[in-house]
Amino acid sequence: MARDVLVLNGPNLNLLGTREPGVYGAATLADVELACREKAGSLGLAMEFRQSNHEGDLVDWIHEAGRRKAGVVINPGAYTHTSIALHDAIKGTGVPLIEVHLSNVHARESFRHHSFVSPVASGVIVGLGPRGYLLALDAIAAILAD
Amino acid sequence: MARDVLVLNGPNLNLLGTREPGVYGAATLADVELACREKAGSLGLAMEFRQSNHEGDLVDWIHEAGRRKAGVVINPGAYTHTSIALHDAIKGTGVPLIEVHLSNVHARESFRHHSFVSPVASGVIVGLGPRGYLLALDAIAAILAD
Amino acid sequence: MARDVLVLNGPNLNLLGTREPGVYGAATLADVELACREKAGSLGLAMEFRQSNHEGDLVDWIHEAGRRKAGVVINPGAYTHTSIALHDAIKGTGVPLIEVHLSNVHARESFRHHSFVSPVASGVIVGLGPRGYLLALDAIAAILAD
Amino acid sequence: MARDVLVLNGPNLNLLGTREPGVYGAATLADVELACREKAGSLGLAMEFRQSNHEGDLVDWIHEAGRRKAGVVINPGAYTHTSIALHDAIKGTGVPLIEVHLSNVHARESFRHHSFVSPVASGVIVGLGPRGYLLALDAIAAILAD
Amino acid sequence: MARDVLVLNGPNLNLLGTREPGVYGAATLADVELACREKAGSLGLAMEFRQSNHEGDLVDWIHEAGRRKAGVVINPGAYTHTSIALHDAIKGTGVPLIEVHLSNVHARESFRHHSFVSPVASGVIVGLGPRGYLLALDAIAAILAD
Amino acid sequence: MARDVLVLNGPNLNLLGTREPGVYGAATLADVELACREKAGSLGLAMEFRQSNHEGDLVDWIHEAGRRKAGVVINPGAYTHTSIALHDAIKGTGVPLIEVHLSNVHARESFRHHSFVSPVASGVIVGLGPRGYLLALDAIAAILAD
Amino acid sequence: MARDVLVLNGPNLNLLGTREPGVYGAATLADVELACREKAGSLGLAMEFRQSNHEGDLVDWIHEAGRRKAGVVINPGAYTHTSIALHDAIKGTGVPLIEVHLSNVHARESFRHHSFVSPVASGVIVGLGPRGYLLALDAIAAILAD
Amino acid sequence: MARDVLVLNGPNLNLLGTREPGVYGAATLADVELACREKAGSLGLAMEFRQSNHEGDLVDWIHEAGRRKAGVVINPGAYTHTSIALHDAIKGTGVPLIEVHLSNVHARESFRHHSFVSPVASGVIVGLGPRGYLLALDAIAAILAD
Amino acid sequence: MARDVLVLNGPNLNLLGTREPGVYGAATLADVELACREKAGSLGLAMEFRQSNHEGDLVDWIHEAGRRKAGVVINPGAYTHTSIALHDAIKGTGVPLIEVHLSNVHARESFRHHSFVSPVASGVIVGLGPRGYLLALDAIAAILAD
Amino acid sequence: MARDVLVLNGPNLNLLGTREPGVYGAATLADVELACREKAGSLGLAMEFRQSNHEGDLVDWIHEAGRRKAGVVINPGAYTHTSIALHDAIKGTGVPLIEVHLSNVHARESFRHHSFVSPVASGVIVGLGPRGYLLALDAIAAILAD
Amino acid sequence: MARDVLVLNGPNLNLLGTREPGVYGAATLADVELACREKAGSLGLAMEFRQSNHEGDLVDWIHEAGRRKAGVVINPGAYTHTSIALHDAIKGTGVPLIEVHLSNVHARESFRHHSFVSPVASGVIVGLGPRGYLLALDAIAAILAD
Amino acid sequence: MARDVLVLNGPNLNLLGTREPGVYGAATLADVELACREKAGSLGLAMEFRQSNHEGDLVDWIHEAGRRKAGVVINPGAYTHTSIALHDAIKGTGVPLIEVHLSNVHARESFRHHSFVSPVASGVIVGLGPRGYLLALDAIAAILAD
Repeated sequence: MARDVLVLNGPNLNLLGTREPGVYGAATLADVELACREKAGSLGLAMEFRQSNHEGDLVDWIHEAGRRKAGVVINPGAYTHTSIALHDAIKGTGVPLIEVHLSNVHARESFRHHSFVSPVASGVIVGLGPRGYLLALDAIAAILAD
Repeated sequence: MARDVLVLNGPNLNLLGTREPGVYGAATLADVELACREKAGSLGLAMEFRQSNHEGDLVDWIHEAGRRKAGVVINPGAYTHTSIALHDAIKGTGVPLIEVHLSNVHARESFRHHSFVSPVASGVIVGLGPRGYLLALDAIAAILAD
Repeated sequence: MARDVLVLNGPNLNLLGTREPGVYGAATLADVELACREKAGSLGLAMEFRQSNHEGDLVDWIHEAGRRKAGVVINPGAYTHTSIALHDAIKGTGVPLIEVHLSNVHARESFRHHSFVSPVASGVIVGLGPRGYLLALDAIAAILAD
Repeated sequence: MARDVLVLNGPNLNLLGTREPGVYGAATLADVELACREKAGSLGLAMEFRQSNHEGDLVDWIHEAGRRKAGVVINPGAYTHTSIALHDAIKGTGVPLIEVHLSNVHARESFRHHSFVSPVASGVIVGLGPRGYLLALDAIAAILAD
Repeated sequence: MARDVLVLNGPNLNLLGTREPGVYGAATLADVELACREKAGSLGLAMEFRQSNHEGDLVDWIHEAGRRKAGVVINPGAYTHTSIALHDAIKGTGVPLIEVHLSNVHARESFRHHSFVSPVASGVIVGLGPRGYLLALDAIAAILAD
Repeated sequence: MARDVLVLNGPNLNLLGTREPGVYGAATLADVELACREKAGSLGLAMEFRQSNHEGDLVDWIHEAGRRKAGVVINPGAYTHTSIALHDAIKGTGVPLIEVHLSNVHARESFRHHSFVSPVASGVIVGLGPRGYLLALDAIAAILAD
Repeated sequence: MARDVLVLNGPNLNLLGTREPGVYGAATLADVELACREKAGSLGLAMEFRQSNHEGDLVDWIHEAGRRKAGVVINPGAYTHTSIALHDAIKGTGVPLIEVHLSNVHARESFRHHSFVSPVASGVIVGLGPRGYLLALDAIAAILAD
Repeated sequence: MARDVLVLNGPNLNLLGTREPGVYGAATLADVELACREKAGSLGLAMEFRQSNHEGDLVDWIHEAGRRKAGVVINPGAYTHTSIALHDAIKGTGVPLIEVHLSNVHARESFRHHSFVSPVASGVIVGLGPRGYLLALDAIAAILAD
Repeated sequence: MARDVLVLNGPNLNLLGTREPGVYGAATLADVELACREKAGSLGLAMEFRQSNHEGDLVDWIHEAGRRKAGVVINPGAYTHTSIALHDAIKGTGVPLIEVHLSNVHARESFRHHSFVSPVASGVIVGLGPRGYLLALDAIAAILAD
Repeated sequence: MARDVLVLNGPNLNLLGTREPGVYGAATLADVELACREKAGSLGLAMEFRQSNHEGDLVDWIHEAGRRKAGVVINPGAYTHTSIALHDAIKGTGVPLIEVHLSNVHARESFRHHSFVSPVASGVIVGLGPRGYLLALDAIAAILAD
Repeated sequence: MARDVLVLNGPNLNLLGTREPGVYGAATLADVELACREKAGSLGLAMEFRQSNHEGDLVDWIHEAGRRKAGVVINPGAYTHTSIALHDAIKGTGVPLIEVHLSNVHARESFRHHSFVSPVASGVIVGLGPRGYLLALDAIAAILAD
Repeated sequence: MARDVLVLNGPNLNLLGTREPGVYGAATLADVELACREKAGSLGLAMEFRQSNHEGDLVDWIHEAGRRKAGVVINPGAYTHTSIALHDAIKGTGVPLIEVHLSNVHARESFRHHSFVSPVASGVIVGLGPRGYLLALDAIAAILAD
């Protein structure tokens, strides 16, 4: 498997740093990207970092990862809880994938407690802020190396 | 806050006037736009009027309203009931927003009784046909003036 | 149809101004009545403004509106969520009726999310404070004029 | 009504042939298109065959079918279970429409048992693999001929 | 036990004859009272016939029946479905009581399918229009005679 | 419509008089038949009285009633709660039908609270013991005479 | 805060001593009032003791307690389980209030397990018979003294 | 596998043509049988066509199909929604089976939305009227030929 | 009580040995009968062994056992989960009865987890294959001897 | 019955005074014990005061109370909501027992609203802080004296 | 596999003979042990008989059985319904295990209807009193001999 | 805060390496401890590693961590899903805590989808096998350093 990773961000993550800082922290998505880029470099991984508010874009990108044999780190945002399309894309391509959430979704509204992504993810990391992305890169690097 | 309003329309509202006239009336979306434009003018509001069938577009436009400090009047159509992404966009940007429904959603199928938009809206106006848009403009004008 | 309106207020609305001002604001029910009276006058509507903590009184008053061919603006308070009797009174008399809530009931406890009044109302206005009553008078005036 | 048919495919159907072949079989979407084209020809139907991972595209295409007075055969994939927008588009345009599923959705996860499309479809064909598309074309041809 | 019967009518039954005649028929409550009076006479029963829109009145009247050792025929209207107070009054007094509904509540909205009165009634008669009251008087006469 | 009535009894009613006399009383089904026969005679009705433990027999007999234009009094026993086939037979034939239960089903196990027969019955009489059959004959006679 | 207490009793408590003595005991409401009066005296509390079968009366009395700065001991009877109006009155006035139930509601029907009063009560005492009122007076005295 | 097909019809299908023609159409079951016989002939299939109102008969016939290695087309009527026995018969014999419904069950009462047959069927065809039987014969012929 | 036992088998048990041998094992129903006959002989019990796919037959046989004062061992198959008629027959006759299931129903689909027979059975034996019948005969012999 | 009381405290109550003081107050468990000891003395009761984080210990202690014929005051902490074992121990020993909660569990998370202890308790006292223990001792003393 | 059996008893079974004799009978746990010892001897099984009120002890003992390759007969008492830990221990060790309940749990409170042990048990025997243990020993002996 | 970590393991984790290796892998708990010890050393953390099958032990240890100001990494095993006591211990002590699961609990039985620990954890890591413990140590080290 290629040492190639897509880091995908779902809806509203472009607001990071301005959106409910009490919940999501002060780091912007650009800050997270920078930290990821550094981490990926140290792990010898090629990385692309993307964001979209469109469910279909996330599905398209999972397909692309499948074709490229890339690993995926994804924070699916609100689509976590509603997108069977994303579930099917991950299952259909078989990409190794780590699901990340910045905030502790289990301590929030009940509609955030169920994830359609988790059952088809290789692993899930929740509540650790931007650090969760870096641990996810550690995990995906290890999986790609298996 | 700027006296600037986005009037956003979700999926299938472009069918207005042809779609189930018994439920939605004979006015087209162009008719509604015209009436809104007139009302907005009388309230001294700059207004843009848009429609999309794509959930991601509505999220993008809420973000744009956030950046422009504009108020929002939105008829989210079917995404009312399914879009946590829209919920998060409104909460994340903090835009003042009035949710409008042409028909009385509470008198229809049970899957139309829950709204992900309502808990983060400044106000909700239901069942009053195109007149609901005009009342929503009244309301948003007052909020922007507060 | 007569240009005659009953504005009805359900249980605990007599506490307005003292009850949870963070939720309901500082205006008293007398303040709301005054604003409504002024608005009704400007719309050429005869108006009566009443409050009761008794479910049966609200039912009786809906019947009275039916006999008088009057329109109704109602804030049913807690009976919104529990009174099938109110539902039946509105359906049985066929009065044009706008349901108003001062606070955003959809952002509060789940037992406030369902309304037995909404499915038989002509329209519903939620979360806009005392201003909601005035928009409701606008709406009922338009309906009575139809 | 025109003898014109849109065959629409929802998310992840572009993976056909590679995605879970045990569930979906070895035929690719191109194979299915070919078989449909042949069948449509034999029925004297003009056919277009499309796929998208975007819910909004499917809604747009249903609208297009409505304007063209075309019949629709649709495999809505994952949007079957989550898209009220699709439901509204079909109901709003009144297009004759056959819903098709390759696999037996009733024998899979419970979240695949409910369809928002079925209640507004003219017919539903489930579990017969690519052959289901051909039967659907038979059915839509008969309906267009009625 | 005294041959004394209270026929009690709950909320909105005073609208009878004008309210949704398609559901409830054209007879007024006065018509029903007359027919009951005649029937009661033929059965040698003293009868009182009352109506109230107040839940508390119905509870008070059940208590009165308990003190007078009278039988009860009751059409509890909407309080059928919401009043535990009525349930407790019937259970607490032990009055023989027949519950009557004019329309077939089981063929209407699901919130009309459960009755708090039925589990503590001696019998229940549903869907037979005003004739149901007369059969109930037959039944209560027989019970009082037991 | 013919003055012809089928009185149908579902599963276990042949045990009457021996089965849980505390719940169902000491009268046997033969006793009930006798009382019905006498009542039917006094009403000028031809009556047949049958019992079966087979759901299909009850469905067959409803069909027979439909062909004979007969009215039906039915105590469907346990099939009340489980038989959609019975529901469809009644709806499909359009026979006037009174549903009777000897015991107060609403005061027993919760699985006895729902009836598939009630929504398609002309009327329902519950909890009045064998007397309920006689009231049902009164009711069906009146309906046949309408 | 004044050392003034309202002891309020909801529907059917006037039946005490005659209603289901196996559940509620043989003491009448007058007996309970006497015991309370004695206890209140020993605690230096002014006390009023009232009962009503009308939900609206209980709401009115809570409001009165709010105006008088009095504490409340309430046995809301059946309204415990159905009255959001009572919930709102307590929350809206902020009166210190102890909820009392004579019987152990948790050992009875499931519809008695939920209380709309408990979440806004200062304390809840269940199942200790008339003694519960006396303990509640102890508790309210202590709270008024805080 | 033999080219032998049983076409089985469940309860109330013998009413076809007279039962709710608005839902089921004007064709009788004999008409459907004739059309099926013609279709089966053109496909080179031996066919038997049966109907019963007894659940046990349908189970017996599935067993017979299993012994004869025949394919099955079944419209299980109301037993669709309640018969685990039918589910087990199909699963236990492993017969290839197409489930057919004349009307669109998904657009009707919610108790018609679940099928115990679908999870063990080879395919399901819904809402296409008598034409659905013919498509089912096409499908079963293809399966028997596989 | 007579030393007489009916061993009753519900729907699809005639398939035993051929149906899903991975779940139900290779023994046929004739094998089970033989083993039971031998066991019954050693216990001095007269035994009859029957199977039917008709719910009504099982009800009839329970009634027969009641008349003969016989004990019952029953594997109700699919009717376990759907037959209130069977529940009523057992309760109504008061026959001592052991419910047996060959497979571990608790490890299978959730619709097999509830039994209408268990609450009225003397005992239940699950998951032990044909051996469960023999243990049930041991148990019923002991009960008949009590 | 002996004038002997066990005061039992469940999991995490040893944290009292340090754990969420906003919810549970500043008093430590030692403070509560002291107040109880004083109260018990004044009531002439022998008292033991214990705490454990082990469900099994609480069960063992209830058994001990049963053998000693002692009364029990228990704050079962989290085991309130999950321990059927505790329920069975109380029911099996028949010890008189008062359940106490420091905080108002009904105003907290929904998983704290159900108690397995309440249905088998003699009484329940909720939300009154450490004072609740003292009222419970009053209550148990009275019960032991009955 | 060794001919070695652990008979394990969960919480409150040490109360046997004194606890609710109407439900559980008059035999003590020592009586049950004696009968088991005799039965085990006759089957040539080494047996240990233990009881604990601690969930963790039962888990530890299942592990011990796994190490000793022993079979298990277990009456898990209240932990039946709440212990996923026990479920995991049985599944994780793969011990052959028969679950026994003295009383008919299916005829009691609904919280006793679900067992976390059953899905991982080899067999389940319910409602036969102490005799159930002996049948379980028969069954486990046969399994160990397989 | 001290650089001191407790790594706690709940029920059945002592079976690791032997229990369902397909789900949990071949590494034993001793292997996991070794890897953790190495990792903790490299992070400059003092670590203790414990396992218990007793819920109370885990609660005790959380309390100990609170007193020592230590961080916690916990795999609560089955108690994840049932232990409110653990939830309260974590919330009451305020220890920084990372919840770890070896397997992907979201892809397993539905009773494993809810965690009482997650809402009070600092972070959650799921599905990454023993590597999850190491990432959790990384995370807790960073939190202790904050």
